[in-house]
Amino acid sequence: MKTLTVDLGARSYPIFIGQNLLTDPSLVAPHVKGKQVMIVTNDTVAPLYLAKVKKLFAGYQVDEVILPDGEEYKNLEHLNLIFDALLQKRHNRTTTLVALGGGVVGDMTGFAAASYQRGVEFIQIPTTLLSQVDSSVGGKTGVNHALGKNMIGAFHQPNCVLIDVNSLNTLPQNELAAGLAEVIKYGLICDLPFYHWLDENIESLNAKQTDALIYAIETSCLNKAKVVALDEREGGIRAILNLGHTFGHAIETDQGYGNWLHGEAVATGMLMAADLSARLGWIGEKDVQHIEALLLKAHLPVKCPQGMSADRFKDLMAVDKKVLDGKLRLVLLRAMGEAITTSDFALEHFEATLTHLTN
Amino acid sequence: MKTLTVDLGARSYPIFIGQNLLTDPSLVAPHVKGKQVMIVTNDTVAPLYLAKVKKLFAGYQVDEVILPDGEEYKNLEHLNLIFDALLQKRHNRTTTLVALGGGVVGDMTGFAAASYQRGVEFIQIPTTLLSQVDSSVGGKTGVNHALGKNMIGAFHQPNCVLIDVNSLNTLPQNELAAGLAEVIKYGLICDLPFYHWLDENIESLNAKQTDALIYAIETSCLNKAKVVALDEREGGIRAILNLGHTFGHAIETDQGYGNWLHGEAVATGMLMAADLSARLGWIGEKDVQHIEALLLKAHLPVKCPQGMSADRFKDLMAVDKKVLDGKLRLVLLRAMGEAITTSDFALEHFEATLTHLTN
Repeated sequence: MKTLTVDLGARSYPIFIGQNLLTDPSLVAPHVKGKQVMIVTNDTVAPLYLAKVKKLFAGYQVDEVILPDGEEYKNLEHLNLIFDALLQKRHNRTTTLVALGGGVVGDMTGFAAASYQRGVEFIQIPTTLLSQVDSSVGGKTGVNHALGKNMIGAFHQPNCVLIDVNSLNTLPQNELAAGLAEVIKYGLICDLPFYHWLDENIESLNAKQTDALIYAIETSCLNKAKVVALDEREGGIRAILNLGHTFGHAIETDQGYGNWLHGEAVATGMLMAADLSARLGWIGEKDVQHIEALLLKAHLPVKCPQGMSADRFKDLMAVDKKVLDGKLRLVLLRAMGEAITTSDFALEHFEATLTHLTN
Repeated sequence: MKTLTVDLGARSYPIFIGQNLLTDPSLVAPHVKGKQVMIVTNDTVAPLYLAKVKKLFAGYQVDEVILPDGEEYKNLEHLNLIFDALLQKRHNRTTTLVALGGGVVGDMTGFAAASYQRGVEFIQIPTTLLSQVDSSVGGKTGVNHALGKNMIGAFHQPNCVLIDVNSLNTLPQNELAAGLAEVIKYGLICDLPFYHWLDENIESLNAKQTDALIYAIETSCLNKAKVVALDEREGGIRAILNLGHTFGHAIETDQGYGNWLHGEAVATGMLMAADLSARLGWIGEKDVQHIEALLLKAHLPVKCPQGMSADRFKDLMAVDKKVLDGKLRLVLLRAMGEAITTSDFALEHFEATLTHLTN
């Protein structure tokens, strides 16, 4: 087992990465403060892992909420189901919430923990590659609004993150691919050697080879933890973690939540960011082709949704959180392995990218 | 004008108290970071003060949300109306929310500010006595759940609080009384001289005499700021501010939000806490009678709702936030002018109080 630490002073916490971690109560015990535990999961994950995780918390009052599976349920209405359960089972402010599932379950459980009785403890047990390498680390929590993704939320750090790679055995192949999009992101934004390693090992990852997965997850979490430690509340550098996300959020909103997986939208969004970076002369046309080829090898989409126009992108991107005082800010590649956040680009280049990649 | 400071390190902020403050843009200007302002108010306050407050922010993009007036609308569903407006008007993460109204508007606006794009700035302009002396100071924000009051929320401090006592001229007499309940609370929990001053000046306050109001608001805010500075997130001493609130919340929940004013429920709750304190021998029977007489002079209720049984109280109080690991904790009076939080009382005394004061 590997243990990484997210270094945030009093809010620091460990990430445990390995096999068969869901059978070891000694890992989580130090991170439960009171006598009550509320496990939040969804109807896909519950039949697979809920019984196991309940045993992990034997000796506590353990209750559960099973949400419907899907990004389309990541809203205030379904968040309220968690509050319903907490109040019906009389959980007090020493309770610990446990997020068992993917990014949607993690984001919703984290926000429920941030706001139940103005803040209680929580533990992340991510079961998808995407949530293991991204959303379970860093404390961003929240739900979607009909007019924008993740528009309602809080920064709320977990007490610990438990990543059992065995849980990926049951993960559908398209969700594995979606997770690989975020893995590839770390290479592009701040770790060129990792990008090259990914290019060489992408088939092992597609085949869920355990050692390759552990290395990819560990390196992704290390990179994320490093960036988050520098800038917990995204005042600056942390924004580079959003490479491809502003384009990607537009795709997700246009398509309706749940029709494109988040990682799939991010993959296409990263290619759009790379295309714009090349137009600015920061990376080469060959680099863009190389990124496109790697995304394709990872079975990720590289084309915008049929019928989604350049104008539609512009309209949706104007309400994204990355807009500051009216100016669109994007994460772009200053070089391969080096992302920056900037609003310093000519609109014609931005429009050329949209025209080139929409259809 | 008086200026107090709530001393919370990097989150410190001023409270301005005086007359005609709503016509002075120089007070708020330093506390608006971006170019956008969203005023949140309700349909009672809007016709009285919205136009004035919009002028206060001339030069910014000013938008507004007008909520229906009433505690029964303090829920996630109506909170979402604030997010709707923010997104429809494309407010970005540098926006400033302005709470113009009483405690409900302040709590909801504060929670919206805490969670919109994971946290934006906000300013409190409380227009009721209760919100001026209590809810606008200290950063507690949130909404109610059908199963419990203020169960969903955040700690989120405002950038400044603007208390214009002139706004009390339009306040109905029963809402003035509700505010006086919280004012009397400060005397009981930590300021015996103020309690005596209140006893002597209660008629001036009932008559909305300006100097008396300013002194009562200033002293209340000073006491609250002192306690909040010691314990921002209610790990300990801050809980004394909840004198009467655990009993009071049970009344409000039983009656349905909005039928008893919060301050009215707190008044009866304080008398219940005083009764229990006397049964423990901490204060005298005469003290209880004196508190009851003062509450009556302030036109506040001192009897539990008709038909609300002792058992109903016990049932509702078990889910209150003040329950820690199954033990009911209450704020009681160790002496007149000195409150403590304790679970160290015999159940028979608690039950005797319920039996004595319910009907």
